[in-house]
Amino acid sequence: MLKWYENPAADADVIISSRVRLARNLVKYPFPTRLSSTDASAAIRAMHASVFTEENRPNVEAEGLKFVDLSHISNWDLNILAERHIISPSMVSQAALRGLVYNDNENISVMFNEEDHLRIQSIFVGQDLDAAFEAANRLDDLMGQNLDYAFDAEFGFLTSCPTNTGTGLRASYMLHIPLLESTGSLKVEVGILTKAGFTMRGIHGEGSESLGSIYQISNQITLGKTEDEIIHELKYYTGQLVEKELSARGIMARDYLAEVADSFWRSYGILSYCRKISLPEAMRHLSAIRLGVMLGRVMGLAENPFNGTIYNIMTNIRPYGLQKIMGPATDPRHLDILRADYFRKVFVR
Amino acid sequence: MLKWYENPAADADVIISSRVRLARNLVKYPFPTRLSSTDASAAIRAMHASVFTEENRPNVEAEGLKFVDLSHISNWDLNILAERHIISPSMVSQAALRGLVYNDNENISVMFNEEDHLRIQSIFVGQDLDAAFEAANRLDDLMGQNLDYAFDAEFGFLTSCPTNTGTGLRASYMLHIPLLESTGSLKVEVGILTKAGFTMRGIHGEGSESLGSIYQISNQITLGKTEDEIIHELKYYTGQLVEKELSARGIMARDYLAEVADSFWRSYGILSYCRKISLPEAMRHLSAIRLGVMLGRVMGLAENPFNGTIYNIMTNIRPYGLQKIMGPATDPRHLDILRADYFRKVFVR
Repeated sequence: MLKWYENPAADADVIISSRVRLARNLVKYPFPTRLSSTDASAAIRAMHASVFTEENRPNVEAEGLKFVDLSHISNWDLNILAERHIISPSMVSQAALRGLVYNDNENISVMFNEEDHLRIQSIFVGQDLDAAFEAANRLDDLMGQNLDYAFDAEFGFLTSCPTNTGTGLRASYMLHIPLLESTGSLKVEVGILTKAGFTMRGIHGEGSESLGSIYQISNQITLGKTEDEIIHELKYYTGQLVEKELSARGIMARDYLAEVADSFWRSYGILSYCRKISLPEAMRHLSAIRLGVMLGRVMGLAENPFNGTIYNIMTNIRPYGLQKIMGPATDPRHLDILRADYFRKVFVR
Repeated sequence: MLKWYENPAADADVIISSRVRLARNLVKYPFPTRLSSTDASAAIRAMHASVFTEENRPNVEAEGLKFVDLSHISNWDLNILAERHIISPSMVSQAALRGLVYNDNENISVMFNEEDHLRIQSIFVGQDLDAAFEAANRLDDLMGQNLDYAFDAEFGFLTSCPTNTGTGLRASYMLHIPLLESTGSLKVEVGILTKAGFTMRGIHGEGSESLGSIYQISNQITLGKTEDEIIHELKYYTGQLVEKELSARGIMARDYLAEVADSFWRSYGILSYCRKISLPEAMRHLSAIRLGVMLGRVMGLAENPFNGTIYNIMTNIRPYGLQKIMGPATDPRHLDILRADYFRKVFVR
């Protein structure tokens, strides 16, 4: 079964994926930041039970949902889950007892005792925010019928951090916008988005650097807007970005074909032959190749040159996932060598 | 028949070639800078006659010497001769009547009416300054018996520019010294050489930039030293440079194999796949490949990856030679595209 990021649709367009995250808390327990380990265990048990009921069984089996007690798995495996966006980076180092429910496709997950008791997440490949919202809602309903959520008539869902209070909804798109970035118009766009209550971040969320011209755009405001308004506005602003990126691509394809082809083939050549490569540099080349493939019909390369989606390769070259595939690195320098070795394995020849 | 730069020995070591140039002038005519066109023609006729005598015939035929009236050939072909070091760059734009004698191997040439009436030149592949000196001397003797050279008992051979007066000898080596360059020790070396009366220049002589870490070292002083002293000292100082370059290469091969291999293979990848490339960038990659080939036994690439010597490719990618091979460029941007196309033709696959 293909994971969502192995789906060729992940390389189809500017929008790589659509994500929805719902924050929920239980009335019965303090927020996770103030939770005793006894209460944390009890909360996990309650949340676990709310999913895996006899009644929910058909749904659970249809989705392929399984539970992992994160307190019992290695730091290594936690990092791999974070690299794949199944858990948040902050979940890796968190000391409290924590759990995770996720499915085989890796597009649905629920974190227990992250910043909030429940973080329900759904990722759909490409532009499919409605489907992601529906899937998250389904899971929310499925659990909500068995749990007492902290909800205030005036403020809505109560959350550990006030920025999530209200709908508890964070909707986001992951975008590949190399030309908005290189033409410098991204800065202007970010200014517009920020005023409208949206935020742009790098590939690995808050505070993370942008690698490979991949950005996440998400709503900053959860209070005072309905879920539909948030999703509608996110679609609107993202649509603007996509249109500008595509328009720049049109100009490139028309007037700078030699440059596009050169950039594509140089990155192809470097990734094919290098013997060591850092993550940021590799991401730059993957970005150039992704752009080249999209403009590719005109330059004699119609297909993705890799076995697997470019987005999946972007994920596989991160430190933990890379070592899972290529074996352990002896030091950070060795990681760059393993990364180069990995590339020579994944090119279609 | 292989030209000297097509000989695999051109890629064998730090020293690419050894060159000797003798400056001579005729008593009978003013120096070329002050020569009327009538006198210029007469001088050319006299110099031509001095080579192609009945007596010299066996020698001329053995060497394959032929005469070209440079006033009758196109600017384009003049530039190609200059790119191949058969004539000097200043000979291209010179208005005066001028001629050239050279051989098929392109390692022997005599310029008529350059800065001096006669510039006798001999290039030998690799470290072979003695052979180059002998060949130039042979030609000097062959012409000298039929010409009256401007010679002063005190000052020696008289020349248009006083820096050539005396022996009229310029001896030089062409060196590939990427590690002396990248480690920064070249500056120190140049200081030492300058004090000793030698000079370092780029691949295309006086005032030319260094491309591909290729440098020419030659004597600055022609007066007050015998020919043997000049050659002996040049060998000595060049020997020092070669030793330092080889010592740095030894350290690279021992401690930085991954870096050497990475640099080699990246340059290989870029030259294999790029769609446009400037001359300086191409020279950088050829330099990395030449270094990699020399350290190559350790990295699974024992042989030169090109059809032809790397040095010959360095010459073929210059503007005029390149267009001779690839057809005319419509503009400078097109030249970079032709250069990339050329590389895809010359890799051994």
